Amino acid sequence: MGGDFGPQVTIPASLACLRKNPQLKLIMVGDQAVLNDMLSDALLEFKDRISIQHASQVVEMHEPPQKALKNKKDSSMRVAINLVKEGQADACVSAGNTGALMATARFVLKMIPGIERPAIISTLPSIFGHTHMLDLGGNVDSSAEQLYQFAVMGEEVVKAVENIERPRVGLLNIGEEDTKGNEQVKAAAKLLEKSSLNYIGYVEGNSINAGSVKVDLIVTDGFVGNVALKSIEGAAKMIAMKLKEAFSRNIFTKLAGLAAYPVLKLFKDSIDPRLYNGASFIGLRGLVIKSHGGADALAFETAIQLAEVEVEKDVIRKISEKLESALAQKDTE
Amino acid sequence: MGGDFGPQVTIPASLACLRKNPQLKLIMVGDQAVLNDMLSDALLEFKDRISIQHASQVVEMHEPPQKALKNKKDSSMRVAINLVKEGQADACVSAGNTGALMATARFVLKMIPGIERPAIISTLPSIFGHTHMLDLGGNVDSSAEQLYQFAVMGEEVVKAVENIERPRVGLLNIGEEDTKGNEQVKAAAKLLEKSSLNYIGYVEGNSINAGSVKVDLIVTDGFVGNVALKSIEGAAKMIAMKLKEAFSRNIFTKLAGLAAYPVLKLFKDSIDPRLYNGASFIGLRGLVIKSHGGADALAFETAIQLAEVEVEKDVIRKISEKLESALAQKDTE
Repeated sequence: MGGDFGPQVTIPASLACLRKNPQLKLIMVGDQAVLNDMLSDALLEFKDRISIQHASQVVEMHEPPQKALKNKKDSSMRVAINLVKEGQADACVSAGNTGALMATARFVLKMIPGIERPAIISTLPSIFGHTHMLDLGGNVDSSAEQLYQFAVMGEEVVKAVENIERPRVGLLNIGEEDTKGNEQVKAAAKLLEKSSLNYIGYVEGNSINAGSVKVDLIVTDGFVGNVALKSIEGAAKMIAMKLKEAFSRNIFTKLAGLAAYPVLKLFKDSIDPRLYNGASFIGLRGLVIKSHGGADALAFETAIQLAEVEVEKDVIRKISEKLESALAQKDTE
Repeated sequence: MGGDFGPQVTIPASLACLRKNPQLKLIMVGDQAVLNDMLSDALLEFKDRISIQHASQVVEMHEPPQKALKNKKDSSMRVAINLVKEGQADACVSAGNTGALMATARFVLKMIPGIERPAIISTLPSIFGHTHMLDLGGNVDSSAEQLYQFAVMGEEVVKAVENIERPRVGLLNIGEEDTKGNEQVKAAAKLLEKSSLNYIGYVEGNSINAGSVKVDLIVTDGFVGNVALKSIEGAAKMIAMKLKEAFSRNIFTKLAGLAAYPVLKLFKDSIDPRLYNGASFIGLRGLVIKSHGGADALAFETAIQLAEVEVEKDVIRKISEKLESALAQKDTE
């Protein structure tokens, strides 16, 4: 029910995913009457693979998380996360209110021991393919220990999603020299150096999209990661606007735009943010994927597919095991 | 002598500036023999407006700042900053080693009372024109008080460069709600709210280039600001590469590129980073402008012109006065 468009987007995306993956089963959580109506044909087409779970409330997009937690105990978000807790669903995918989704997930599912708050990880395009980055806003003022935990958790996500054995892990800093950075980052570098991770050292902001070497996972504090992510979104938006402006100037530029249309379309597709939609909340005892609120059906499909991969690869169990051994190792030191 | 290209870039840029501004006088600091040779014609053309100051050493681009400070007392950088200290120059413009330039400027010029380290401010393109942002890496782990000082200092730079009375000041955060952010940012917001600045509230990373409202000055910690700046650089680089790739694919796309060339050129010019080159170190008792090390002549020209504007508008004096009254106001509270 969440996001800017609700079932208008989530239902077509769900049906597309059911068509693509015959293993997939979906429980649609929300207003039963609305869903029944919109799903009537699909309920026949995907008889055993789609079901409806009624939820009488919806968390509004700008509702304060604590208020939603207290007053919306039968929201679609809460009911969906309950299904994960009870083992009736392997993952919850939502385009709803981020803060409320995070607060609810944390309250219902609880954290893996040793983790305080969920970290948010997502994929971004890079000149080498993709880069994964965390934390994107779950935690601010992260300690060196937290940054290290992000790296341990993030590695499992990258291994699953990219299907690589030893992801290259970089720590976001404001220079590549040892003397650069704040105390937390310098201390985290020491933890990463002696870890079993494939740690490649400090990387700078430009490495997210276009560094000099490939990096599979970039680790940073949630404040910094969120600012970096949104700065990139702003840059891409400005550049797209300026490009459009240049081609809209007069009849000649418009003709040039017509000639270049197929190429511009190809270019636009190559950086389509919808193909990068979906952020995982990690550190929880269950899988929750957040879709962008403004996602269209194609974008929401990407978020569901991310959940499919992470379920299939058993990412949550792997994260728990890795963290347990990482924390145990620390205790014996 | 600094930067990736030395006098090959700094000299042509200097001559272009001398031609454009008849008020301008330049002291070229560096190896006398080299400069004499390269400037022979110019010394005649701009007789009273150009002079050479010999410096026997050059700070290397990757030399540790403390080493440069200790062993390179006759470097072009050090000699140029000395000229500012002695009042023989109104500003120093350098494309050299950033860390060494900052350490030397701080050591020679000293800070304005109450300021610990210089902040770095620069201009970025936005869909509304330009946005200025600081700190871009001078300070990490900035306190609320430091963030407030950045805003006070930054306002004077924006007033001078943009010629506006009341710049709109935003504080970089990871959401626009009061509850978002870290402690320093929340406390800085309180200081800004009760200040005389035209404070518009929290802004997010996307506001640097393409927010929903115009913001003239964005205030943030140096770690965050540096990451944001470089993330934007990386995004722009990736997008440019993908655009080029799309037009280079085959003979048809190349023809389309040919047809669209004038428009693509126009677009490229509209986001040309050379027009945004030059960052001011502020909080010092003298004016120092850092050009990008890889600047070409056009980019270095922009940095010199920035110095011209800041000198003409007496920015350093205005910053000192504003800070003094801001700090005095705080003491009486």
